[in-house]
Amino acid sequence: MLKPNPHFNRLQKNPIFVDIEEEKKKFKGTLVDLGVGDVSKPLAPAIIEALTAGCREMGKRPIGYGPSTGYDFLREAIFEKEYKNFGFTQDNIFISDGINTDVTHLFALFGDDIAIGIPDPGYPAYKAAAIVAGYEKIFYLPCTAETGFLPRPPSQDLDLIILCSPHNPTGVAFTKEELKEWVLYAQERKALILYDSAYASFMDEPFNVYEIDGACEVIIEMKSFSKSYGFTGLRCSYTVVPMEPYRTLWERHQNVMYNGLSYPVQKAAYTALSLPLTEVADYKHSGRLLREELEAQNQEFVGGLDAPYIWWKVPEGETSFSFFQFLLHKCALLAIPGTGFGIHGEGYVRLSTFTSEPERAIAHLRRGLCVSM
Amino acid sequence: MLKPNPHFNRLQKNPIFVDIEEEKKKFKGTLVDLGVGDVSKPLAPAIIEALTAGCREMGKRPIGYGPSTGYDFLREAIFEKEYKNFGFTQDNIFISDGINTDVTHLFALFGDDIAIGIPDPGYPAYKAAAIVAGYEKIFYLPCTAETGFLPRPPSQDLDLIILCSPHNPTGVAFTKEELKEWVLYAQERKALILYDSAYASFMDEPFNVYEIDGACEVIIEMKSFSKSYGFTGLRCSYTVVPMEPYRTLWERHQNVMYNGLSYPVQKAAYTALSLPLTEVADYKHSGRLLREELEAQNQEFVGGLDAPYIWWKVPEGETSFSFFQFLLHKCALLAIPGTGFGIHGEGYVRLSTFTSEPERAIAHLRRGLCVSM
Repeated sequence: MLKPNPHFNRLQKNPIFVDIEEEKKKFKGTLVDLGVGDVSKPLAPAIIEALTAGCREMGKRPIGYGPSTGYDFLREAIFEKEYKNFGFTQDNIFISDGINTDVTHLFALFGDDIAIGIPDPGYPAYKAAAIVAGYEKIFYLPCTAETGFLPRPPSQDLDLIILCSPHNPTGVAFTKEELKEWVLYAQERKALILYDSAYASFMDEPFNVYEIDGACEVIIEMKSFSKSYGFTGLRCSYTVVPMEPYRTLWERHQNVMYNGLSYPVQKAAYTALSLPLTEVADYKHSGRLLREELEAQNQEFVGGLDAPYIWWKVPEGETSFSFFQFLLHKCALLAIPGTGFGIHGEGYVRLSTFTSEPERAIAHLRRGLCVSM
Repeated sequence: MLKPNPHFNRLQKNPIFVDIEEEKKKFKGTLVDLGVGDVSKPLAPAIIEALTAGCREMGKRPIGYGPSTGYDFLREAIFEKEYKNFGFTQDNIFISDGINTDVTHLFALFGDDIAIGIPDPGYPAYKAAAIVAGYEKIFYLPCTAETGFLPRPPSQDLDLIILCSPHNPTGVAFTKEELKEWVLYAQERKALILYDSAYASFMDEPFNVYEIDGACEVIIEMKSFSKSYGFTGLRCSYTVVPMEPYRTLWERHQNVMYNGLSYPVQKAAYTALSLPLTEVADYKHSGRLLREELEAQNQEFVGGLDAPYIWWKVPEGETSFSFFQFLLHKCALLAIPGTGFGIHGEGYVRLSTFTSEPERAIAHLRRGLCVSM
């Protein structure tokens, strides 16, 4: 039979996630799930209204293929709200079904022999997609206590860098000054940055990355409605490609490889843009309560302020995985072992603050921690 | 700046489509659009009901990330309806947002140095995606009068073949016997076939491709709700990968590079499966009326029975493009010049039968043809 892409052989199924599933099977009872970063609230009524109105419109008149780059009404609204002061236009904004999809498919715009920098610990799809794409020069940028839990510009030359801020899984965000260092690095090395802003709406002091001098030449930003407005099950994101030739190439890519996002979802996203970030405020509240509890328990951790994740240092003598097991079996609480996000995640677990029941989570934590630690 | 993927330079913007746009701009008046193959009817009431019910559900309880491979309720329903007798399971069926997306991303499963066969004339994205993916060995399989307007197994060895039946743009479908020849070819050459069945529901005598001995080892089939149930603006398709290791690799690919299709659209697709093909019947009726008119006018053409496309031979002395211009300016009718689908499309134009106004199209045709030919 035809031989498959050999790079899939380099793609090990992340053994940590297999182990998590095994461990979860052993657990009997009711878990508090602070594992996957997924919404725990229904969509807002105004979004449901826009969504169903869009659906009903499709029953009244034929609404066929939309633009593969997204409808102008949504591109324009995003542009007006966020990007109108940076010298580019709404034609630089592309609607799609998720940052995950775009960040992995953007690789198609570049050659095979580039050096790519990926944060470690980081969102696992970055690494997996780079492997499947066949990159041989993959460099992991440590996000450890020494680096302030964010990737820092390295001494070696990289061509393409993936950054995520606020960072998943550490929950820490770049300041504008810190991001400037990366913009300078990219300018000097003629590199590009794929900037995953999935959690930007959680920042206490948000800024637009394109406010930084030169950012328009080196940063491709990706944002999502998933975490801001609860769209994880609806799918809608946008990618900003301010520089040529990449704007034109991405437009071509999308015209060839994609047929656009469904009409009602884009209508719902349009409406979402004018809504307050109510759910974000709720999840941030959960984050603050969880932080207070960990502080009261003298635990070491970062995150939970600018992002819906708390990055919790495991106690002396524990590993990521053993502490995950402890939390599961003694606290009935699901966390993710840090090693699920890369080797530099050892010594930590990630707690998601996407919970509507922070008090229940705290009661579970308290039970386990006070008894056993 | 970082150098882009050099293969984009091989991807010329199809000049025919640029010319079509230019020519359309010159036209003043009301066109009958038999150009793009897009729906011209609203979605059926039962689909709207399922769609809005799915949306309202998302306002009542959190429905977050779905499986990247599609919800089991939809995979199972498709399996039960179409694929339960072929020795594979619903785990071999993958839901996604369109055949266009899947056929172009499936290339990621294979190595770079394979020989790929692409029908000419054919759907332009096949060729464009193969070019962007960097394939050097692209062979065009002519679909001309001599080949019966469908690609035939060639003498050379190909590793991967894209077939589309009923074929776009010629509107002609393989019989089971003809497809058997391709299955034998693939078995002998250890090749795989990506089989685009977008228009399968238009066939007068449909058959399941997996009824053919050995097809499960060599055919990856892609089907869509777009043309069968008017989902072009909603987006939903499915890809059947019956053979290993490709089933496993595609599952991994989707888990890494995709986050699944929106919940309400999958609910709507589930409902669509049990509906009669009312719109298909209407478009087929339009096709028959258009065929009758062309026959009455002594025109040479194929298609329009098993597919929503008529492939019309241009008169002596005309080219695809000049006849397209004639139809536009003398008949106020938009067709697509055959050369838009490849060099072997010269001498033809494509008429789409996705029209709710066949009588108007016929009146336009009659006006132009009787006056000028």
